[in-house]
Amino acid sequence: MSTDLDPGIAARLKRTSDGLVAAVVQQHDTGEVLMLAWMDDEALRRTIDTRAATYWSRSRGEYWVKGATSGNTQRVVSVALDCDGDTLLVRVDQTGAACHTGARTCFDADPLL
Amino acid sequence: MSTDLDPGIAARLKRTSDGLVAAVVQQHDTGEVLMLAWMDDEALRRTIDTRAATYWSRSRGEYWVKGATSGNTQRVVSVALDCDGDTLLVRVDQTGAACHTGARTCFDADPLL
Repeated sequence: MSTDLDPGIAARLKRTSDGLVAAVVQQHDTGEVLMLAWMDDEALRRTIDTRAATYWSRSRGEYWVKGATSGNTQRVVSVALDCDGDTLLVRVDQTGAACHTGARTCFDADPLL
Repeated sequence: MSTDLDPGIAARLKRTSDGLVAAVVQQHDTGEVLMLAWMDDEALRRTIDTRAATYWSRSRGEYWVKGATSGNTQRVVSVALDCDGDTLLVRVDQTGAACHTGARTCFDADPLL
């Protein structure tokens, strides 16, 4: 396993002032949008190397392997960077619920329109 | 047409320090994730009222009706707020390309994994 993110990838990222890029997480087969999370270079490196979706928790200030405590893991199928380098699309196979509320996705509870 | 965002919705938004929430934009029938954009209260109000997807351009500092110049409009089918109130899922019917590069989505060009 490498210890740094591929420099060719790192050079293409356009990070927030906190060093993060957004990660849109999608169930690979159904197309459901599960959640939005954030990654820094190290979270992206771990996600690519391990295929276990790993984020940076802005509220807790720590790395977060999705499902490490809940069991609701995300096996990573693909990762793509968007045209301006500030957003990732992470396609996963989600075990169980993606949302901490127990809902399948984080967008199930509050339709506005 | 109303002039302010519904106060019941506004109270549930958790905005960035710039007053924005992220908007994940998805083609309603195929499930393709098209792009990530940003909305403030007024952009969300216009999106809900007009059903023409309207964003806040962070680079240009102005409202932006998707497709107003390109013709690649987004008719809004549904809008949902996520569990912690900082991300919207906007399901649309996209005309033509979503990406300014001419690609169907902003995630087509740069697979990392």
